[in-house]
Amino acid sequence: MNHLLTMNDVSTDEINKLLDRAEEFQRNPSIDTLEEKSAALLFFEPSTRTKMSFEMACDKLQMKRLTFSPEQSSVTKGESLYDTIKTLESIGSDVIIVRHPEKNYFNAIKNLIDVPMINAGDGSGEHPTQSLLDLMTIRQEFNRFEHLNVAICGDIKHSRVARSNAIALDNLGANVTLVAKEEWQDHSLPFKYHTIDEAISGVDVLMLLRVQYERHEIKEGKEESYLQTYGLTKERERAMRKGSIIMHPAPVNRGIEIDSELVECERSRIFQQMTNGVAVREAIIEHCLK
Amino acid sequence: MNHLLTMNDVSTDEINKLLDRAEEFQRNPSIDTLEEKSAALLFFEPSTRTKMSFEMACDKLQMKRLTFSPEQSSVTKGESLYDTIKTLESIGSDVIIVRHPEKNYFNAIKNLIDVPMINAGDGSGEHPTQSLLDLMTIRQEFNRFEHLNVAICGDIKHSRVARSNAIALDNLGANVTLVAKEEWQDHSLPFKYHTIDEAISGVDVLMLLRVQYERHEIKEGKEESYLQTYGLTKERERAMRKGSIIMHPAPVNRGIEIDSELVECERSRIFQQMTNGVAVREAIIEHCLK
Amino acid sequence: MNHLLTMNDVSTDEINKLLDRAEEFQRNPSIDTLEEKSAALLFFEPSTRTKMSFEMACDKLQMKRLTFSPEQSSVTKGESLYDTIKTLESIGSDVIIVRHPEKNYFNAIKNLIDVPMINAGDGSGEHPTQSLLDLMTIRQEFNRFEHLNVAICGDIKHSRVARSNAIALDNLGANVTLVAKEEWQDHSLPFKYHTIDEAISGVDVLMLLRVQYERHEIKEGKEESYLQTYGLTKERERAMRKGSIIMHPAPVNRGIEIDSELVECERSRIFQQMTNGVAVREAIIEHCLK
Repeated sequence: MNHLLTMNDVSTDEINKLLDRAEEFQRNPSIDTLEEKSAALLFFEPSTRTKMSFEMACDKLQMKRLTFSPEQSSVTKGESLYDTIKTLESIGSDVIIVRHPEKNYFNAIKNLIDVPMINAGDGSGEHPTQSLLDLMTIRQEFNRFEHLNVAICGDIKHSRVARSNAIALDNLGANVTLVAKEEWQDHSLPFKYHTIDEAISGVDVLMLLRVQYERHEIKEGKEESYLQTYGLTKERERAMRKGSIIMHPAPVNRGIEIDSELVECERSRIFQQMTNGVAVREAIIEHCLK
Repeated sequence: MNHLLTMNDVSTDEINKLLDRAEEFQRNPSIDTLEEKSAALLFFEPSTRTKMSFEMACDKLQMKRLTFSPEQSSVTKGESLYDTIKTLESIGSDVIIVRHPEKNYFNAIKNLIDVPMINAGDGSGEHPTQSLLDLMTIRQEFNRFEHLNVAICGDIKHSRVARSNAIALDNLGANVTLVAKEEWQDHSLPFKYHTIDEAISGVDVLMLLRVQYERHEIKEGKEESYLQTYGLTKERERAMRKGSIIMHPAPVNRGIEIDSELVECERSRIFQQMTNGVAVREAIIEHCLK
Repeated sequence: MNHLLTMNDVSTDEINKLLDRAEEFQRNPSIDTLEEKSAALLFFEPSTRTKMSFEMACDKLQMKRLTFSPEQSSVTKGESLYDTIKTLESIGSDVIIVRHPEKNYFNAIKNLIDVPMINAGDGSGEHPTQSLLDLMTIRQEFNRFEHLNVAICGDIKHSRVARSNAIALDNLGANVTLVAKEEWQDHSLPFKYHTIDEAISGVDVLMLLRVQYERHEIKEGKEESYLQTYGLTKERERAMRKGSIIMHPAPVNRGIEIDSELVECERSRIFQQMTNGVAVREAIIEHCLK
């Protein structure tokens, strides 16, 4: 099956082909459609961007879509994820898009189903469609990955994009630097850690990660101090190179990982990332259905 | 931007044009479509009629639609309304339809977005699409607004339609009378208050408002006494003029603001209002997308 | 009105015509469409299969659909089911599909509305679209109903499919046997009860029912003992006739009413039932809209 579950499922060559196709969809929205196809979306965790973005991608491809709401479903009667997915396959879904809190939820399922599955986030695991839209945003800006200096800043350890982005960018020829406070560092990754101040002046791309504020990792009232020590302040932004850009997967905690006024500054590609997310997901869905 | 946020956004001339167009849509459902367009619906408060009516309007226009569910979204992670709306704009929504409990929620947003926004209710503020469907229902019945006697009855102070309807009807030439118990009167409005018994025999249009029963403004067991003193009983209905009509924005509290048997009586336009709501929203969406 | 509320609404002749039509839809998905029509789905109880299946059926027929979510609606403000359905009729829904916890909820409504209503489950009452997909699955397998030996096993008393399936199959000429522990037997039905071991070797069709596990009818830790006494173990499956099949409406409690390994065994038609559910619902919707 043509699943997209982790970034390991796509070679650097396939990445570039997917991004080419995404750009085609962006230039010419009606270039190709998948009118007879139907997608099922299963989101077991809250999501705005990813879910809406997949729905929009389906709409642009003229596909039908079923949105499965776990809290109004037989999952409340104890039905397993496998049985739920097998049900959606049985009623005729052509591609299954899943977000689930359990890391690697797909391992127990992927060889047992006859429809492609797209991972829209597995706990602290991966989020490959987010990685691909990040890569699209970088390539769109610089027309290459080779020798770009990319710093990834924030909770590397628990982020489901940091790890896959770091590895993919390294494979694509970029120079990757990590920025994280001690307890958020992941030393299994083959990259060096620096402070944000050490990193800032040399980067082409500053990829900020979301602080999982809702998990109370920052005590109330400590936001400002986090921003000053680890975040992107206006002062740091002024130290950035000409032509360098700021990225963030969103939702942004304004005033924590980034000064609120910088969210839509000239260097920011935060909303452009969301726009790219739709095109890249169109390319991914098409790829999986081929 | 071509927003529709309050009734102040539309002149009396534009009101009549919108109603003309709504009637065209009603006569000929396939007169025009907006096939390439996509609407986003953001409802931060419960709604049956308004939400379903907007969805049906989109469907009749052959548009795509995204339904954003706050409780399954990044709003649960603290994302702001502005960032949520900007996200929907970024992923390609062409028009954003919002209901939100905060009065004037749109003021902080309306100048910062590049897509039209339609207000589907802002707390105790306004509900302009409801006002327009009310006006459509009246015009459909009488072919004019001038010199019509309209009484608006109920919780004028907290109703988001009472105020805008009263002002719009006055601008359009109708004679507006208000009926409300002391604590529900809003004396900033330039209209006189009467008892329902004083008003009933002279009206062409009796617009009942919903009692916010769920906010416990009426003690249990006091429903009958409310109906007798302030509501539309069968006796009062019999005192109404020939040709006069009854309106209510619904959901109706049967037996409180109106005797249950009158909800579908000959004078009632309550379900016709809902039918008109779809056509008027088609006209509004089209207007905002122009 | 052309409602489908209970199996009494369809004669054996109509059943066969509906199944013929469902098979046509299955062979040729685009044989006919209902492009101008719009369905409303109102599910007041959790559902995966039935809801998704109806949505897929609408999609395959190229219909529009509105999904009403009670918990985000005016039902939270106390609106009655009748007023909710009348609202959906007023805004232009052409067919209303309802699941509701109250048995016979439709009796108070069916003569008051001008659109067809399809019952997608009424409490412990009926579930006629499930019955029809079960019948389709049997007919597809054996090309007849006459003289087939069918055993229905489980909580006959509280199951909304058991009763209608038993009566329909009897009318269609099958020999029906029931299997249930004492407290789950319904003696108003004109069929004999046997133990599963008595029934198993003679059946062509073994219809297992779901144990309402979420209602705590089985104490935790007693699952294995239930399976051994009343359920389909691997040993019992081996005792089944050549060519005989296993059915279950799902969601399955793996290891309770059936050994987990048998859910997808060769005899199992459990996922085929779901596939058939879409086609049969297409036929039903079309029938109701005629």
